[in-house]
Amino acid sequence: MSSLDLSRAGAESLDTGNPLRGHHDLFDLPEGLVYLDGNSLGALPRSVAPHLARVTGEQWGRGLISSWNDADWIHLPARVSAKIAPLIGAPPGDVHVGDSTTVLLFKMMVAAARMRPDRRVIVIEPTTFPTDGYVAAGVADLLGLEVRWCDPADPAAALDHDVALLALTHVDFRSGALYDMAALTAATHEVGAVVEWDLCHSAGAVPVDLVAVDADFAVGCTYKYLNGGPGSPAFAYVAARHHDDLAQPITGWMGHAHPFEMERDHRPADGIRRMASGTPPVLALSALDAALDVFGDVDMTALRQVSVSLTDYFIALVDARLGDTFKIITPRDSAVRGSQVSLAHPDAYGVVQALIARGVVGDFRTPDVARFGFAPLYVTHVDVWDAVDRLVAVMAADEHLHPSYAVRNVVT
Amino acid sequence: MSSLDLSRAGAESLDTGNPLRGHHDLFDLPEGLVYLDGNSLGALPRSVAPHLARVTGEQWGRGLISSWNDADWIHLPARVSAKIAPLIGAPPGDVHVGDSTTVLLFKMMVAAARMRPDRRVIVIEPTTFPTDGYVAAGVADLLGLEVRWCDPADPAAALDHDVALLALTHVDFRSGALYDMAALTAATHEVGAVVEWDLCHSAGAVPVDLVAVDADFAVGCTYKYLNGGPGSPAFAYVAARHHDDLAQPITGWMGHAHPFEMERDHRPADGIRRMASGTPPVLALSALDAALDVFGDVDMTALRQVSVSLTDYFIALVDARLGDTFKIITPRDSAVRGSQVSLAHPDAYGVVQALIARGVVGDFRTPDVARFGFAPLYVTHVDVWDAVDRLVAVMAADEHLHPSYAVRNVVT
Repeated sequence: MSSLDLSRAGAESLDTGNPLRGHHDLFDLPEGLVYLDGNSLGALPRSVAPHLARVTGEQWGRGLISSWNDADWIHLPARVSAKIAPLIGAPPGDVHVGDSTTVLLFKMMVAAARMRPDRRVIVIEPTTFPTDGYVAAGVADLLGLEVRWCDPADPAAALDHDVALLALTHVDFRSGALYDMAALTAATHEVGAVVEWDLCHSAGAVPVDLVAVDADFAVGCTYKYLNGGPGSPAFAYVAARHHDDLAQPITGWMGHAHPFEMERDHRPADGIRRMASGTPPVLALSALDAALDVFGDVDMTALRQVSVSLTDYFIALVDARLGDTFKIITPRDSAVRGSQVSLAHPDAYGVVQALIARGVVGDFRTPDVARFGFAPLYVTHVDVWDAVDRLVAVMAADEHLHPSYAVRNVVT
Repeated sequence: MSSLDLSRAGAESLDTGNPLRGHHDLFDLPEGLVYLDGNSLGALPRSVAPHLARVTGEQWGRGLISSWNDADWIHLPARVSAKIAPLIGAPPGDVHVGDSTTVLLFKMMVAAARMRPDRRVIVIEPTTFPTDGYVAAGVADLLGLEVRWCDPADPAAALDHDVALLALTHVDFRSGALYDMAALTAATHEVGAVVEWDLCHSAGAVPVDLVAVDADFAVGCTYKYLNGGPGSPAFAYVAARHHDDLAQPITGWMGHAHPFEMERDHRPADGIRRMASGTPPVLALSALDAALDVFGDVDMTALRQVSVSLTDYFIALVDARLGDTFKIITPRDSAVRGSQVSLAHPDAYGVVQALIARGVVGDFRTPDVARFGFAPLYVTHVDVWDAVDRLVAVMAADEHLHPSYAVRNVVT
């Protein structure tokens, strides 16, 4: 890090060598805005609006019901899944897209627990994104199981032969710390349990190879680094070896072997399609479909290099220009870091708001975290430099203490 | 019926008196197409595409993450719910929108069964739309309950004190027959059970008054007569008296009392919001939001009058011009009929395809049903007359026997 040129010219120089520089123009970002919140809501790819207009006006408006066949809406979930698969190291036939992340977590946790009917424990870690813990507790309640909270620093220590499922988030939403997916998957298998990885903060920003690590299940959202739009459908991965045994609980017609035969009794479809429940959300899936095209020619190794370069650079600048004003709660070792950096500060909410007023968008996470995400496809080193420069200005002028920041927004 | 003028001029005359005639222009239908499949996918309201373009380009593209507050995305589900509520006789605070119909059915059936923990039976009727039965069986399997299939002609006969839940579809998807919601709800309550009404084929076409009939739960889709677009989010109704006891199983962060406090343990939100699970699907909800505006000034009594007039007229024309070529499986008594008419015929698939080739869109339902939906907001009596006229031509020329109809489309 010591060799980094911390001037703005240095940032410009780093951007010149960015192998993903050509992708920036695929996004429609407001001029001059520094957007470091792609880990909450990804920016709008330029391909989305025209495609959504076509799907709405032509496929729905003109084609009407015939578009289920003529525009092949019925296979849209499979087509979108096939675009996500290479980003997470999965065969296309092992990925399903549809429902919210929460609903897919529920389906997978129930299915996973049912694969180990003689075991009573779901292990989860207490700093995970809340919905993962809420769903685990809900599933445990429903099935008469028990939730065991592990030590975030050592989840494997909670594993024993009572454990059915270990559910972990690959990259922590608050700290940005990244678990060793291969080692923890292996440890889970050693006790005969299955593992479910939450990829919400990895997919599209951190290389993931689910097949290589031998993962059982994974789930992730598509509105962060995959840029699918607010509340876009989530994805789920089920290892092929589990397809035949997969008994997910929400047995709807779209997961039936022959949906249009309208049989009275449920027969799950072969393969990943049994993860489906209701009619696919065509408009939302179409936005996601177009959004994923920005990844068409992206090399995930290059993506990771850019991500690490951006986060390293941010940390170096904060160290150099802000000393110990903030506590950096994200690992300094890039090998165990996702694509974000989080700064703890007692007035973190005000810091985030004051930065927004200066055109730098990060977000606040309770109780004291200012969180900055670095989406490698559209964030530049100059963005990083400008963000830290304005953060210095905010702190120098105590802008974060402005009284208007005493009351938080509905959504923080 | 005998007084009906069955000439095309008669149809034109009926349209002149149609109190909803002004609403036809709110929809963007292909010129010359007779669209009688709004009970499968509603037509495109003209308000949708411009609104969706604004939400995508401005709220997402320009506003980015701030739109959760600035465009009030966080309350979008509540705003959309409030537009659906008056169409089903519900207070706005008792309606939730989000997820697919299948997922909401699952949540409600589990919650309903949990309200009667000492009872073991879910009653459902065997001709219902398959997903309702599949979900009931899935819930029974999960909770150790039993599914009891009732006689479709007399569901109340299956009720006794073992029954936790009666789940019925208000208007049958295949026959268009309509149940007496008030009487069956009362019969359910008499044995101490709760009732869940599936309104997929009623909402937006048949007046529903959930409060007046004292219903417990209801669920419905929004892409049929509510015109929300392919796969648009579903809605659920929970009577206010059940809110505090409602324990739906998919406990996600958006149903938490304080989502952004990120508490470790789940505390369900007060009121209907506890039905929520994951992040709301903003793009899909926005399309639905705009689509519902076509109902803004619609009187539901007038809507029903138009619906009955259209279906009566279709039946009269089929009787007069096609004799007993088809068996009309929809009730001739309009009091127990939804807004569709279904014709049984051994070659129903070919009949539907041959009609489509002549610009009349209905759909086929296995094994032998040609199904025609009459969306009162955009279907005219002239459409009905033209549809039957072309049906006469199809049958006269045996167009329905064309060999290309021997293989069915993926989606029928």
